[in-house]
Amino acid sequence: MDMIYFDSAATARPFDCALTAAAEAYSVYGNPSSVHSAGIKAKAIIENSRKSIATALYCKPEEIIFTGGGSESNNQAIFGLAKLRARRSKRIITTDSEHPSVARPIEALEKDGFEIVRIATKGGELDIDSLQKELENGAAFVSIMLANNETGAKYDIAAVRRAIDRSGSGAIFHCDAVQGFLKTADIREIAKNCDLASISAHKVGGLKGVGALYCKGGIKLPAFILGGGQENGLRSGTENVGGIAAFGVACGEFTKHREHISSLYNKAVGLLSEESGLITLNIPKTHIDSILSVSVKGVRSEVMLNALNLHNICISAGSACSARKGPSGALSAYGLSKEEIEGTVRISFGAYNTVEEVCQLAEKLITTAKRLKR
Amino acid sequence: MDMIYFDSAATARPFDCALTAAAEAYSVYGNPSSVHSAGIKAKAIIENSRKSIATALYCKPEEIIFTGGGSESNNQAIFGLAKLRARRSKRIITTDSEHPSVARPIEALEKDGFEIVRIATKGGELDIDSLQKELENGAAFVSIMLANNETGAKYDIAAVRRAIDRSGSGAIFHCDAVQGFLKTADIREIAKNCDLASISAHKVGGLKGVGALYCKGGIKLPAFILGGGQENGLRSGTENVGGIAAFGVACGEFTKHREHISSLYNKAVGLLSEESGLITLNIPKTHIDSILSVSVKGVRSEVMLNALNLHNICISAGSACSARKGPSGALSAYGLSKEEIEGTVRISFGAYNTVEEVCQLAEKLITTAKRLKR
Repeated sequence: MDMIYFDSAATARPFDCALTAAAEAYSVYGNPSSVHSAGIKAKAIIENSRKSIATALYCKPEEIIFTGGGSESNNQAIFGLAKLRARRSKRIITTDSEHPSVARPIEALEKDGFEIVRIATKGGELDIDSLQKELENGAAFVSIMLANNETGAKYDIAAVRRAIDRSGSGAIFHCDAVQGFLKTADIREIAKNCDLASISAHKVGGLKGVGALYCKGGIKLPAFILGGGQENGLRSGTENVGGIAAFGVACGEFTKHREHISSLYNKAVGLLSEESGLITLNIPKTHIDSILSVSVKGVRSEVMLNALNLHNICISAGSACSARKGPSGALSAYGLSKEEIEGTVRISFGAYNTVEEVCQLAEKLITTAKRLKR
Repeated sequence: MDMIYFDSAATARPFDCALTAAAEAYSVYGNPSSVHSAGIKAKAIIENSRKSIATALYCKPEEIIFTGGGSESNNQAIFGLAKLRARRSKRIITTDSEHPSVARPIEALEKDGFEIVRIATKGGELDIDSLQKELENGAAFVSIMLANNETGAKYDIAAVRRAIDRSGSGAIFHCDAVQGFLKTADIREIAKNCDLASISAHKVGGLKGVGALYCKGGIKLPAFILGGGQENGLRSGTENVGGIAAFGVACGEFTKHREHISSLYNKAVGLLSEESGLITLNIPKTHIDSILSVSVKGVRSEVMLNALNLHNICISAGSACSARKGPSGALSAYGLSKEEIEGTVRISFGAYNTVEEVCQLAEKLITTAKRLKR
C-alpha cells in the first residue's frame, strides 16, 4: 500500500528534478572557496541557484543569503535585528501566532529586556488597526509571518508595510515567509513589502538543511556564524552545494504546481464540507491553498492521526514542530477553544498529491470521525 | 583529462556509499518531528546515524548534536561556552593557529571584554609548558584544535587534558576536530580528552552542510538556534536527514581508507624530498597523514596552483577558507617567513586518490617549480 502524504507543510516530497540537481552538484566535489577548477564549478552552482531564487523572489541575487534552514534564517534575522537596532529601540512588534523559530528568539529577547508587543491574529486576520497604533509608539523592528503554518492564514504584509511607512517609526520589517513562499498569488509581495524574509528549501520541494534569508540591500545585519567569511561574511561555513542547487531548481519547479495544489485544496474543502455537522473547517478569510485546518469535535487529533496512519495516510496534528510538544498557540490565537484544538488536524497539500488521494483522505477522515465519535 | 584532486582537506569527494545513503534518506520525505510513519522513518535514520557517529567517536549517541557544519559547531561551542562560563571567568585559552571559525568568534569575544591567551604552536607543536602556566591563572574554557588545517600538525590533546586537570582550573576543553576526526591513529582520544569537539561530514566523505558537536554529558550548553526544539533543544530546525544519513555511513567507511591515505602521504613525501634544494616540506613532528604543506621559494602559491590547475590537478594555497583572503596566520604561527608563506601550497589526500595520481602530482609540481623558478 503506497503512502498517501498530506503533510507537505511539515516537509514536502523533494521534486525529482531537485534530487537530480543535488546529486549532480554533490558530484562536483570542490569547495566553493577554492580557486581551482573544481572550486570554481562549485561556486558557479551556488551563484546560479542564488539567481534562480532571486528570480523567484523578485529581488537581486546579492540580497539572498544561504542558511542552514528556515529556523536558522529566522534566528539570524531576529537576533541580528535586535543587535543592530538595540540602541535605537528595544521594542519589537510581532504576532501571537508566529512559528517557534520566531517566537522563541523573541521570548529570549524579552528576558533580555526587550519590550514585546504581540498583535492578535484572530480568525487568521492580522489586527492592522492595533498594529498601526502600536507602531506610532515606535519599534526597532516588526516580525510578522506571511502564512501561518497551522491554519494557512495569509497575513496582509502589504498592509504591514503601509502601517510601518505611515508610522514614520523606521521599523525594519522581517517576515517569516517559510510557509508562504511561492504559495501566494502575488509572489512579488515579499520583496516589495519586507526588508528581511526567511525561506526554506524543503517546504517547496528542495532538500532539508537549506534555507535563505532575503536581506534588502543596505541593511547591515551582523554575522550569524563567524569564520571563513562565506555568504558575504554573514554565514561562514562551507556551503551546502548540493542542497543549494536543489533549492534553485525547486523554486523554478514549484510555481508550475500552484494551480494543481489549489485544485486539490478546493476538492478537499468540497468533500469535507458535506459533513459540516461532524467536521469544522478552520478556513481563514485569506489563506494559502496548501494548508487546511480541520477540527473534529470529540476526536483527539493524535487518535485521528494514528487511525489514518493505519491506512498509510500521513497528516499532522498541529505542526510538525509542535507535534511532540504541548497544545498549539497558533490555533488558540486563531480563536479555537481548548477542546477544538485537541481535535484539530492539519492537512497540507503538495505538488505530487492527486485528486484520487484527496478523495481517499476525505473518505477515511469522515468514516474515522464517524466511527471514533460513536 | 580526468581531474586529479588533492584538496580533500578543503572538501573530500563524497563516498559513493554516502551518496547512496543520502539519496535513500531523501526519498523518505517525512519530517523527523512528525509522528506518522514517514516521520518515524526519518527520525530512525537520524538516530541510526547518531549511533554510527557515536561509535566512531567512542561516545554516547546522546552526546552528539547535529549541526549545519564544522563552522557552526565551532561557533556554537565558543559562544555557548562563553555564555555558560562568563560569570565564573572571562579568560579563554586558545592557540595562535586556529581555524577562522574558532579564531573569529574568539576575537568577537575579545572585543566584548574577554581576555584571550593564544598559546604558540611553532613548528606545529603546542607549547604545553606555556599552556600549563596560563592555566594556573584560571580559564573559562580552552579551545585547541586537534589537527591544523594548513600544516596537518597534530596537537597533543592528551597533554592539554592533563594540563587542565593538573591546573585545577575547571576549564572546559573544546576541540576543533574538523580536520583531525578519524585521521589520527587513536580515534578514542577525542572523547577521552575533550569536553566538546566539532566535527564535519564533508571532510570525511560525507556531504557539505552537516556537522556535529560532541558535547560530553552533563555540560549544559545554551541553544544555538531556538525554535521547534530539535537536537535536544540545542539546534532547532528540521534536520538534514539525507546529509545526516550520509555522515554516519561516511564515518564507517573512512576508517577503512586511513592506511591507504598514509601510504599516499609517504609516497608524496618520498618523491618531493628528492628535490630538497627546490622544495621544502613543512612536516610537523606529529601530524595527520592527509595534509602536506610544501613551500617552493620564489614561486608564489597562486601561480603554482594555477599552473597545476592547467594540468587538471587541484591543490590549495593555504586553506580553502583563506583562499580568497589574506596571508595565513597558521603558517606564520608555524614559523614560516612571509616569503615562504607566499610560496606555500597545501596537498591534501583523500580515500579516492591513487599512487599514480601522487606520482603525476609530484612530477608536475617539480617540473613547474623548476620552470617558474628560472
